Amino acid sequence: MTKLELLQQWLQEQQLDVIYISDPNSVAYFTNFVSDPHERILGLFVFADAQPFLFAPELEVNSAKKAGWTGDVYGYLDHQHPFAMIADLIKQRAQQTTHWGLEKDSLPVQRFEAVRAQFPNADFPGNVSRFVEHLKLFKTPDEIRLMEEAGEEADLAFSIGFNAIQQGRTEQEVVAEIEYGLMKQGIMEMSFDTIVQAGANAANPHGGPEKDPIVGNEMILFDLGTNHKGYMSDASRTVAFGQLSDKQREIYDVCLEAQLTAQDAVKPGLTAAELDAIARDIITKAGYGEYFIHRLGHGIGTSTHEFPSIMAGNELVLQPGMCFSIEPGIYIPGFAGVRIEDCVHVTENGAQAFTHTSKELNHIPLH
Amino acid sequence: MTKLELLQQWLQEQQLDVIYISDPNSVAYFTNFVSDPHERILGLFVFADAQPFLFAPELEVNSAKKAGWTGDVYGYLDHQHPFAMIADLIKQRAQQTTHWGLEKDSLPVQRFEAVRAQFPNADFPGNVSRFVEHLKLFKTPDEIRLMEEAGEEADLAFSIGFNAIQQGRTEQEVVAEIEYGLMKQGIMEMSFDTIVQAGANAANPHGGPEKDPIVGNEMILFDLGTNHKGYMSDASRTVAFGQLSDKQREIYDVCLEAQLTAQDAVKPGLTAAELDAIARDIITKAGYGEYFIHRLGHGIGTSTHEFPSIMAGNELVLQPGMCFSIEPGIYIPGFAGVRIEDCVHVTENGAQAFTHTSKELNHIPLH
Repeated sequence: MTKLELLQQWLQEQQLDVIYISDPNSVAYFTNFVSDPHERILGLFVFADAQPFLFAPELEVNSAKKAGWTGDVYGYLDHQHPFAMIADLIKQRAQQTTHWGLEKDSLPVQRFEAVRAQFPNADFPGNVSRFVEHLKLFKTPDEIRLMEEAGEEADLAFSIGFNAIQQGRTEQEVVAEIEYGLMKQGIMEMSFDTIVQAGANAANPHGGPEKDPIVGNEMILFDLGTNHKGYMSDASRTVAFGQLSDKQREIYDVCLEAQLTAQDAVKPGLTAAELDAIARDIITKAGYGEYFIHRLGHGIGTSTHEFPSIMAGNELVLQPGMCFSIEPGIYIPGFAGVRIEDCVHVTENGAQAFTHTSKELNHIPLH
Repeated sequence: MTKLELLQQWLQEQQLDVIYISDPNSVAYFTNFVSDPHERILGLFVFADAQPFLFAPELEVNSAKKAGWTGDVYGYLDHQHPFAMIADLIKQRAQQTTHWGLEKDSLPVQRFEAVRAQFPNADFPGNVSRFVEHLKLFKTPDEIRLMEEAGEEADLAFSIGFNAIQQGRTEQEVVAEIEYGLMKQGIMEMSFDTIVQAGANAANPHGGPEKDPIVGNEMILFDLGTNHKGYMSDASRTVAFGQLSDKQREIYDVCLEAQLTAQDAVKPGLTAAELDAIARDIITKAGYGEYFIHRLGHGIGTSTHEFPSIMAGNELVLQPGMCFSIEPGIYIPGFAGVRIEDCVHVTENGAQAFTHTSKELNHIPLH
């Protein structure tokens, strides 16, 4: 079944009449039409008793068809009233229009009120966001392939970044070299702002690259990823630039053991909370539990933060096709930070990573 | 009066009890606390009969204080129920909690329902988004200064970009040179994806830079801007690389005349529609009206697309402090595209541009 057919099946099960897919990311997911309509309206309307249609800004209509959408697509111009047009199209097409499914996590109240004004007797039970989230948990082989390609780009970015490390160069300059090197190869979009943090700066997992020059004899943390045809990569490596102290080396080794053990433990049947605990227990037993201040991982796919969340309290059972990060970190304020991260997809009996840059401590000599 | 005091005054005028500022961009506007909470809750709550407070993820609480917010700020942890906590805080603080103002343009239905579940007797008249939009129309001197600094960065980007043009280099490679040159100076964030389009590619104003090598004897369109401390620049220049045909030169001259005439005409009292018409008439009289397929301009400030929209039908009267783009374009499919753009702020008797790169046709010799 296609993703759209799965949505139609769910609509029947929920006894809905109309589903309005309003998030451009979700529209892309169901139709392959990738578009950022900014303040304009883009919607996919799906029915119990009629064919679905796309509604889009007029200047996007041809792009939607080119992207492979074979159903009806209707355009509107800026001076037209989109929700009046949508209501007319729906009333021409569908018999039943009372029970609506909305993407309540993202649909703004103003658009909700515009729908309700057109359909005053409608009700809006449930939240389609939950179902879309659930569908997106399970990546298809085509999606896995795109995420593998995105992972190759992240590996390339690491190799550019490691080569760019120099004493006196700032963290921001290393970011510049990474993104420049990627853009020269036509990789134009990162999945988030590239992080390069040296020494004690790396102890702030919510900070970014600074103008501070890299000194040397410290660890340098890289966290980066690319947006490859709408699918994201995300990976972290921490390298040694020059000599490390015993304690720096120790927190690296503890973090690495946590990462490798957790990644090795992934298999269908384990819960997200159990996986988090496997990594967290290793760090806690080594005495650094208080410095591991975030969840073990987050889901990834068409966005860098989606479900499943790999954290305490999440009893979700891991199943094949789920994709998420495994990224333990140890952040000691004023001293150093380590994070090591691969994103993986769950297979029939384990996990396969999207990135393959070595996680053994990379010693880069001072220069 | 501060922006927050203006919001409180409006709350009184509208006879509201509570305003929930939910858009992180708006929270930054009223509090100077810039933050992207992703899926977490960040809100500013303002009252008729009590002091306002900020509600934020726990790990953001200190950043909010550091940013200069001197009122109360309450944090929550991921396992807590933010809207139950918000409701408790509000009920402890305010006597009247019936009439709510919401940012309906951006507040998702799911969060709206969470508020309504805590305050079942509340009503939600009007839309605070309209008032915030209105306030944002008028930039303060501090904001103008930041936008001038952002404009300087855009001028720097043009000079890097013009120097990067070479036969055989691709459009994407020129983008790479621009962003690399900026990042090496610590300018890390563009306000939107940088556009470099040569020859016929520039005829698609919704396209981007391609892997096509620059041939020469064609025009090259640049559209770019930076994010400077939360304020955006946005400007376009079109240059000649090698010899142009008479018709290429003609559409450049027509577009330039439209741009200069419109920019020169800006003054308080003119309407947005009248300004659009001044540029459009010049292009239409020259016979190219059908190729100017977008509005003359858009507002700019903490985002690259806000109010005022400079277009037919918008009877908004221009006033000092308003900031917007003036960007006529002529796009002839399969042939060439020209766009020339400055963003300006309206002054007491005219307009002042944020970017100063010459708009006279820049002839870059083939090389």
